[in-house]
Amino acid sequence: MWPGLEALPWRWAGGAALALGLALLVRGWRRRRAPRREVLFFPSPVTCTAALLGEPRPAPCPCPLPHGDSPLARLLRRLLSARRSLELCLFAFSSPQLGRAVQLLHRRGVRVRLVTDADYMALSGSQVGRLRQAGIQVRHDQESGYMHHKFAIVDKKMLITGSLNWTTQAIQNNRENVLIVEDAEYVEPFLAEFERIWEEYNPANYTFFPNKKEQK
Amino acid sequence: MWPGLEALPWRWAGGAALALGLALLVRGWRRRRAPRREVLFFPSPVTCTAALLGEPRPAPCPCPLPHGDSPLARLLRRLLSARRSLELCLFAFSSPQLGRAVQLLHRRGVRVRLVTDADYMALSGSQVGRLRQAGIQVRHDQESGYMHHKFAIVDKKMLITGSLNWTTQAIQNNRENVLIVEDAEYVEPFLAEFERIWEEYNPANYTFFPNKKEQK
Repeated sequence: MWPGLEALPWRWAGGAALALGLALLVRGWRRRRAPRREVLFFPSPVTCTAALLGEPRPAPCPCPLPHGDSPLARLLRRLLSARRSLELCLFAFSSPQLGRAVQLLHRRGVRVRLVTDADYMALSGSQVGRLRQAGIQVRHDQESGYMHHKFAIVDKKMLITGSLNWTTQAIQNNRENVLIVEDAEYVEPFLAEFERIWEEYNPANYTFFPNKKEQK
Repeated sequence: MWPGLEALPWRWAGGAALALGLALLVRGWRRRRAPRREVLFFPSPVTCTAALLGEPRPAPCPCPLPHGDSPLARLLRRLLSARRSLELCLFAFSSPQLGRAVQLLHRRGVRVRLVTDADYMALSGSQVGRLRQAGIQVRHDQESGYMHHKFAIVDKKMLITGSLNWTTQAIQNNRENVLIVEDAEYVEPFLAEFERIWEEYNPANYTFFPNKKEQK
């Protein structure tokens, strides 16, 4: 035997242990990454979002709109980071860009579920019909009050919530806020609220009155 | 001299050092208290809030309404914790209970400032006129979009924000959320947003068009 050969298994074991330790360290570091805390204020300047919404991957766009950052672009990027699930609980949803983003996620295999308000989903310009046609699960209220939430949950760990209805009017003209939140103290109650509403709005419970407000 | 008397200054010094150490510990503990993170979901069951709104101190109320906890009662308690300042940035404000809470704080000497939407502040039932009559500073937009925020900042350190307009309809009938937040990453941008809007809506800039929507 060559000199030192008997030490080889120990060196392998040492190397493997080192690699494992490093992997665990990196994983621990990733887990301990500070939770994302971000605020977006609107109105948002109109910027080109076509590049962000390109398929299969974002691509440059030659249009004349500004291509810089904007609150809407940041909101789209947070949404488009979804890999597994997206819960949407939205009073009004008519923004074409946000609608395209949700359809894109659906096509990528993300499980999308949308809860919305029955009165607003039928308005002209609503994205809800298109999302349903695309095969996305939608449930709505049948209550006298409004389903007035405006939140999204990405991969069950990032909450996006605030005053912003998902409409072009709100994005471009109104004073609005959106919080991006990863703290479990907020994400978990919102997830539970979503699941509670999702079950309550199960179509098996619909009574098909022509106008829910008349039931008052 | 009595025996042991020469040790007395050392005992005093020791006692004083102990007290100082304890005071610093308590102060450090207070400062390090985890930031409050709380979520309230609405609709809120109707409960008696008269006790909370009693002057000069909360007092029991004999009315027949339930006297338990409710999301509205918790929202009121957070607001009523203000000691120095209250910034309000509210699209719609017609809830009598929330109006009473704000007037109470004003009478207690808390510096209250309210920014609101010009279209909604004139609606029947709005609290804005009463608050102005009580001497609270109010500023409103003159923009084509809505001032659609619904947030409050207590003593510049607690943010109260969400989907909830401060109306009885929203509190009692709608699905709504309110976040109570003390993390500086959220509180500071909202404070800056408030100050920005407060300056932009300075009455010196008003142009007194009869209807802001006609300026479009």
